Amino acid sequence: MTHMHVAGSIHADATSAAPVWLVKPSDPNELVEGLWSGTVVRDGEGELRIGGLGASEIVEQEGSPVYVVDEVDFKGRALTWREAFAGWHIYYASKSFLTGTVARWIDEQGLGLDVASMGEMTVALRAGFDPARMALHGNNKSEDELRLALSRGIGRIVVDSSDEIARLERLTAELGVSARVLIRVTTGVEAHTHEYIATAHEDQKFGFSITGGQALVAMVRCHGSANLELMGIHSHIGSQIFDTNGFEVAARRTLRLMSQFKEATGVTLPELDLGGGFGIAYTIDDRPATAHDLARNLTEIVDHECRAFGLDRPTLAIEPGRAISGPPGTAIYTVGTVKNVEVGGGQTRRYISVNGGMSDNIRPALYAAEYSAVLANRAGSQPPVLSRVVGLHCEGGDILVRDVFLPGDIRVGDLIAVPASGAYSRSMASNYNHTPRPPVVSVRDGRITTMIRRETLDDLLALDAGLDENV
Amino acid sequence: MTHMHVAGSIHADATSAAPVWLVKPSDPNELVEGLWSGTVVRDGEGELRIGGLGASEIVEQEGSPVYVVDEVDFKGRALTWREAFAGWHIYYASKSFLTGTVARWIDEQGLGLDVASMGEMTVALRAGFDPARMALHGNNKSEDELRLALSRGIGRIVVDSSDEIARLERLTAELGVSARVLIRVTTGVEAHTHEYIATAHEDQKFGFSITGGQALVAMVRCHGSANLELMGIHSHIGSQIFDTNGFEVAARRTLRLMSQFKEATGVTLPELDLGGGFGIAYTIDDRPATAHDLARNLTEIVDHECRAFGLDRPTLAIEPGRAISGPPGTAIYTVGTVKNVEVGGGQTRRYISVNGGMSDNIRPALYAAEYSAVLANRAGSQPPVLSRVVGLHCEGGDILVRDVFLPGDIRVGDLIAVPASGAYSRSMASNYNHTPRPPVVSVRDGRITTMIRRETLDDLLALDAGLDENV
Repeated sequence: MTHMHVAGSIHADATSAAPVWLVKPSDPNELVEGLWSGTVVRDGEGELRIGGLGASEIVEQEGSPVYVVDEVDFKGRALTWREAFAGWHIYYASKSFLTGTVARWIDEQGLGLDVASMGEMTVALRAGFDPARMALHGNNKSEDELRLALSRGIGRIVVDSSDEIARLERLTAELGVSARVLIRVTTGVEAHTHEYIATAHEDQKFGFSITGGQALVAMVRCHGSANLELMGIHSHIGSQIFDTNGFEVAARRTLRLMSQFKEATGVTLPELDLGGGFGIAYTIDDRPATAHDLARNLTEIVDHECRAFGLDRPTLAIEPGRAISGPPGTAIYTVGTVKNVEVGGGQTRRYISVNGGMSDNIRPALYAAEYSAVLANRAGSQPPVLSRVVGLHCEGGDILVRDVFLPGDIRVGDLIAVPASGAYSRSMASNYNHTPRPPVVSVRDGRITTMIRRETLDDLLALDAGLDENV
Repeated sequence: MTHMHVAGSIHADATSAAPVWLVKPSDPNELVEGLWSGTVVRDGEGELRIGGLGASEIVEQEGSPVYVVDEVDFKGRALTWREAFAGWHIYYASKSFLTGTVARWIDEQGLGLDVASMGEMTVALRAGFDPARMALHGNNKSEDELRLALSRGIGRIVVDSSDEIARLERLTAELGVSARVLIRVTTGVEAHTHEYIATAHEDQKFGFSITGGQALVAMVRCHGSANLELMGIHSHIGSQIFDTNGFEVAARRTLRLMSQFKEATGVTLPELDLGGGFGIAYTIDDRPATAHDLARNLTEIVDHECRAFGLDRPTLAIEPGRAISGPPGTAIYTVGTVKNVEVGGGQTRRYISVNGGMSDNIRPALYAAEYSAVLANRAGSQPPVLSRVVGLHCEGGDILVRDVFLPGDIRVGDLIAVPASGAYSRSMASNYNHTPRPPVVSVRDGRITTMIRRETLDDLLALDAGLDENV
C-alpha cells in the first residue's frame, strides 16, 4: 500500500506476475499525478490532449511515432529551476535533448547551456546562444572543439585531463586568447543509480581524483598557467538521483579541496559547479524533489561546509538536463499487434507491439529503465490487464514499457502515450533495422511546430555509397 | 592457464584487478589468432595492415573513427557458410550490417537475405537483390511493409502473430497475390546468452507458443487460407550462442510440431528454419565452432529427430548475420587522452579516451559486451599495462573495451584497432551528443572503397527545423 498517497485510485490488488512496485489501478485511463506534462488532460471523449491537441489529431498531422514536447511545460520547468536557484549559474545539459528551438527556449528563460561536443556547440551557436553562458564538457575534447570554443569565447571549459591542460595551454597561446576553466574532480561518491550513469566513483574516465592528489595538482597548474583562468571546480556524481546524500558528501569533499587550494596558494576560487543528475518520475515509484527543495537543501549543505572550512560561499552552479527536458516530452506510438502470452502459473502477459522501439528509445534496454504508458486516443472501457509495450525491432530486448496495466480492450490502431520521454530518447536514437527516426514537435495552444522533422528513408540511404543513386 | 592453447604467448601472469579470464600477454602487439579478419597482419614496421593498407594510411585518407571491412574476408566467410550448409537456405541477417554493397556481396556468394523492415527491404531491392531469395521478419510488420513485400514477391514471410495473419489475408486478397509463409514459433529454449538477445523462451514478444498450442492453430489457419502457402516453421533461439544444445532442443520441438501438423492435416511441411545466433570471437575467451562443424552437428540433430518422428528431412534454413559480417570489420580510433587512475589496492587502470564511443558502438553498454583492442599505427615498445578504452561521450558507461592490456608507451595521437566490429556497431549507431556517425569503408588489395560515407554535422542538423538555415 506504499503508493496510496500518490494517487487515490491505486490499490494493492497486484497480479503476482507483476513486479512488487506495480499495483493494478482501478481505472487504467487515469493520468497519475506527477507523470505527465502540465497541459496533459483527458478530454470529455476520453482522449489524451497535450497543449490543446488531441493525440489522434497530432498523429493525423505528424504521423507516428512522434515525440511531442509541451512548450508551456518545458519553459515553465526551465523558469522554475532559474527561480529556485536564483543567484546560481544554471547550465541546461544539452545532451539530454537539444535542438535550435530548445537552445532559444533555454536562452529566453535566462539559463546557461552545458555543451559537450562540436555538434552541441554548433547548434547552440547557430541558434544565437551567447557563448559566454556556455560551459564545454568532455573527457576527450578534440583540438577542433577547443579551437571553436576558444575562438568563440565559450564561458567555461571544464578541464578533464592533463592532456587537455597541455592542449589548452598550446591553443590559447597560438590563438592569443585566454580561457576560464573549471577542474572536473572525482569525489569518490557512489550515487545510488544505474552503474553506467554513476560518474563520481574513482574508477572512471572523468576528471581528476581528489584522494589521489591529482585534482590539486591540476588546479595549481591551471592557476599558474598564463592563459588559463582557474574559476573553480566541477563535480558530477551521476544521473537520475533522488536524494541529496551524494551531493552532501561531494560538497564536503570539493569544498575541502577549495580550502586546501586556498592554503596552498592564498587564493579563494570563486565557483563551485555541483553538476546535474536530478531525477524525474518515469513511474509512480519515482518521487523527485522539487527544484525549490533541492535549492534549499543544496544551499544549506554548501553553507554548512563553507562555515566549517572557513570559506566564503562561492558562486554555485548546477546542470539540470533531464529535469527540464524529460517531463515535457510524450512519445506517441500506434499499436500494430496485440498478443497474449502465457507466462506460467496461469498468468498471461499481453504483448502490445508498437511502431517504434529501441531505435527511438534505447533507455529500457540500456539502463533497464522503467516507463509508464496509457491508451491515448480514447479511454479504454475494459478492466486493466498486465501488459508489456514492445517495439518492432528484431530483438527480444526491444521493450519500451516492461510492465504496465492497460485497458483490456486495447486493439490494433490504438495510440499509446509514454510520458517523461523528452530526455535521452530522441537524442540517443539510432537507425537500427534501417528505421528512420521519428520527428519531435512542440505543441502549444492547439498549434503544432516541428522541432526535428521526421527522418525519411532517403535521408538515411543518402549515406550509403553502395546504392546506384549515390554513386 | 586455460587460454594456453589459444595463443602460445599468453600466460597466467594476471593482474589482480583484471577479470579472471584476462591474462597479461607477454607481447601486447601480438595479433591473437581467431580475433582478426583474414588479411590483417603487422608489417615489418609494426603497423597493422588490413587488405594491404596500413592503419595510418586508412585514417589519413578517411579520417577516424573509421570502420574498415576486409572485403576478401567478408566474401570468404559468406562462401564458407554457403559451402558448409550446401543444400540449406541461407539467409544473411541484414540487421547485423547492411549496405548496398553488402547486399551485392551476399548476392554474389549465392546466399539469401533476411530483412526485417521497409528500410532493409528497400536497400536490398535497390541493390538488385532477387526478392524471391529474401525472407521478411518482424513482430510488427506494417501494412506498407507487407504491401511492398507482397507486390515485389518477397520469397518468405515469417508470420509472427494472429493480427499479422489477418492482415496478410486481407492484403493478399486485395492485391490478388499469394504469399509463402513460415510460422515463427517459440520453443521455450533458454539460450545461454545475454537476456536481451535470448529470444526463444516463452515470455517474449516473438512468435506463437508451441506449448500453448497457438503455433499449431496458426499453422492450420495459414494452411487453410486461400492466398497463403504455408511452407514450414521458423525458430530463433537467441544471439551470440556457442553450443548446439539449444538448437538440439529447438529441433526436437519444432519437428514434433511438424509431425503433429502432419497428423492433423496429412501434410508434410517442406521447410524448417532454425534461425541464427551463431557466436563469434570478440575476445580470446570466445571459441566459436566452424561453419562446417555447425552444419554437421545441426544436420545430425535434425536427421536424428526426423527419424524419431518418422518425417522426411525438410529443407533446412539458417540465418547467420554476425558470423559473416562481424569478424571482417575493424574499428579504428584515434587516442585523445591517456589517464592513469588508481583503483585501490595499489592497482592502476589506464583510461584511454578515443574519438568515438557509445554512439558508434553501443554493444559494451547495452549488452556488457567485451571487446579486444591493439595499438594499430605501430608496435608498442613498453610492457603491457591494464587499460580501458573509453569514448568521448558525457557518460560514465561510455566504455568501448572494458579490460585490455595495451603497450605502456601508448600516447595521444596513436591509433587503436578493435576487431570483430563489423556487426551491430555501425548498424546501431546513434548521434548521441550530436556526434556524426563514422564511415564504413571496404579494403582490398590496397584499395579503399566507401560503403557508408562519413556523416557530416550538416547531414545531422538538416533535420533540425529550429535552425534558421532550415526554416
